[in-house]
Amino acid sequence: MTPVDLILEGAGEIFTADGPPLKGGALAVAEGRIVALGSLPDDLEISPTARRIDVGGRLITPGLVEAHTHILFAGDRSGEYAMRAAGAGYLEIAAAGGGIAATARATRAASLEALIEGGRARLDRLLGFGVTTVEVKSGYGLSLEAELKMLRAAKALNETHPVDLVMTFLGAHTVPPERRADREGYLREIIDEMIPAVAAEGLAEFCDVFIEAGAFGLEEAERVLRAGIAHGLRPKVHADQLSAGGGAELAARLGAISADHLERISPEGIAALAEAGVVAVLLPGAALFLDDPHRAPARALLDAGVKVALSTDCNPGTCMSEHLPLMGTLGVSQLKMSPTEVMEALTINAAHAIGRQAVAGALAVGRPADIAVFEVPSHHHLPYHFGINHRWRVFKGGVEVA
Amino acid sequence: MTPVDLILEGAGEIFTADGPPLKGGALAVAEGRIVALGSLPDDLEISPTARRIDVGGRLITPGLVEAHTHILFAGDRSGEYAMRAAGAGYLEIAAAGGGIAATARATRAASLEALIEGGRARLDRLLGFGVTTVEVKSGYGLSLEAELKMLRAAKALNETHPVDLVMTFLGAHTVPPERRADREGYLREIIDEMIPAVAAEGLAEFCDVFIEAGAFGLEEAERVLRAGIAHGLRPKVHADQLSAGGGAELAARLGAISADHLERISPEGIAALAEAGVVAVLLPGAALFLDDPHRAPARALLDAGVKVALSTDCNPGTCMSEHLPLMGTLGVSQLKMSPTEVMEALTINAAHAIGRQAVAGALAVGRPADIAVFEVPSHHHLPYHFGINHRWRVFKGGVEVA
Repeated sequence: MTPVDLILEGAGEIFTADGPPLKGGALAVAEGRIVALGSLPDDLEISPTARRIDVGGRLITPGLVEAHTHILFAGDRSGEYAMRAAGAGYLEIAAAGGGIAATARATRAASLEALIEGGRARLDRLLGFGVTTVEVKSGYGLSLEAELKMLRAAKALNETHPVDLVMTFLGAHTVPPERRADREGYLREIIDEMIPAVAAEGLAEFCDVFIEAGAFGLEEAERVLRAGIAHGLRPKVHADQLSAGGGAELAARLGAISADHLERISPEGIAALAEAGVVAVLLPGAALFLDDPHRAPARALLDAGVKVALSTDCNPGTCMSEHLPLMGTLGVSQLKMSPTEVMEALTINAAHAIGRQAVAGALAVGRPADIAVFEVPSHHHLPYHFGINHRWRVFKGGVEVA
Repeated sequence: MTPVDLILEGAGEIFTADGPPLKGGALAVAEGRIVALGSLPDDLEISPTARRIDVGGRLITPGLVEAHTHILFAGDRSGEYAMRAAGAGYLEIAAAGGGIAATARATRAASLEALIEGGRARLDRLLGFGVTTVEVKSGYGLSLEAELKMLRAAKALNETHPVDLVMTFLGAHTVPPERRADREGYLREIIDEMIPAVAAEGLAEFCDVFIEAGAFGLEEAERVLRAGIAHGLRPKVHADQLSAGGGAELAARLGAISADHLERISPEGIAALAEAGVVAVLLPGAALFLDDPHRAPARALLDAGVKVALSTDCNPGTCMSEHLPLMGTLGVSQLKMSPTEVMEALTINAAHAIGRQAVAGALAVGRPADIAVFEVPSHHHLPYHFGINHRWRVFKGGVEVA
């Protein structure tokens, strides 16, 4: 066995997301992987240069996993937030030049380098909260060239930032203003040009569609998602957020890896997700930011046996935050999840939502040493003491990165 | 004129809370006070040892003011939070040994030093968010000795911590369990022993009562508050939070400096606060934490001409957070305040709520140099980009303290 090069000991709790939390204990890492967990075996071979860190009663968890973001964008939509509080609706904001189209204008105009730098700042903030794996969507390009630019920015970040990125193509985020008179033409561009180009360049694993009254209908979504499947991109969907539209049922029927938002999912939709094993990614920060009185039915989803993940939805229009643990607080206070369910939602279930359950979101012998240490004594305190960044140290593959 | 010893220049915006925000500009400090604001006069005498800081387009604001906290306590109530999410009500939590009585047990058992250290950690976090003046209540002692211990802890912190503390006596937080059979006896202890002792030792400026079905009624509150007035303690009230009870009207009638919570204030209560010039201190973090569907009517209060402050209510049972700017996000998203109203609520109006409007919560020539610099370009971004600690630097009386 390779000698151990990192030991974390003196934990208050180790939340493994792979069985019940351990009361106290230690963890040993060799060559980037966990080789011992709980109590350290007596015969553990320890490198003479190993780091040995007493975490002083703090909480050790898997590096958190963020399963739904739009962190690559240019422009500033802080003004819309004030307009919305003053009562402006979608149409009024759009008429004032706001909405997704506003971000698309700025993102198209931005250089690849500018997109990368903006994304890097947001990834740094996510990492600062203990997040070591992040899903990133395109969807502010809305043209072949600009969608590819976004995904190339994500690829560049994945290669240069300690956080692992998982990329999703979201050309079907909205029909861009200049194509509204030719909706079918835009759909054909997604299906015939964008998806093949994204797949050919290996720029995404998933294909997402915003299924919504103002975005894409069920039949349109199915055409896009089937084109993605044909090119090896597994479906994901934005579903049932602002209106109930059967998006969850479609996700189940097409074998999507996740259905996201779900504030207005139907009982049939819940049953369909459970039956098909689709992960529900809930985004309570967006509901808070938009002040949506509807809440995703986390309890009904959990009770039906659906895996529930919590994510930030970090984006400039409807949830400008990288504070993933705060979504856990909303999970408890608003969605009535237990602290344990919340922690699973921020780790292993989020990993399931992006196909990383074998390598991220849990602590177990043999797994990569993606580890967060928080300045609290137990996982109950992470959602409880809210708004605070409790992160103490973060390790990615056994290397301290924050 | 004394030579300037600190210059902050290159602001993106200076939110003075004393007139419209300035686009860009600079600020000069001499001997702890602001001596120039906006553009610096040509003949400004600058000390050869002066610090000159280019804030690089960031936002300069008054040090934030926190007008309602319970940060002095011992014990841990994270378990209650999970119980509440699982559906437990007040009675069930109390039966399990929780609630205010749980914190009172632990606080009574804690040493003065332990209380000070716990309070210092929370004050440090508040300061870390840009807060330079903090109101602190007693109310977890619920006996003469333990209430004095809490206020002495606050006094010690005021003398040793850079943040200024403003102390409020809250012996009438709840009737402690061992006095429930002798409610009148506990009231008499507050009126005849605690208030005179607190006043004699100069340990508080304000006297607060939790007016609530499970705490104190209007007549009881009036007796306590009048006793406070007789000893020079101006009234404050916890009013109309969980049930509508005429607390706001009582606050107005007694000339309270503030009425706090107000989720269920009546239209008559709003009119009474406006007429009497009582500041409304809204605590949307508690409403979020408790998932209270009722919201304080911020717009109706503002429209009636009431000064509205926003505070954390930081306490272990109903809002465990020191993140004051996050309350501004809730002010916009949930209470429909504008970003400008939110910033006034976190600065000058909060200062009005604790009698510090002459010295805290605004930037103007002649005022103390309590200044926060945030890593955002304008005050719109502070509530918009939420959950993030945007604090860059904090100055208290011209001295950098965070």
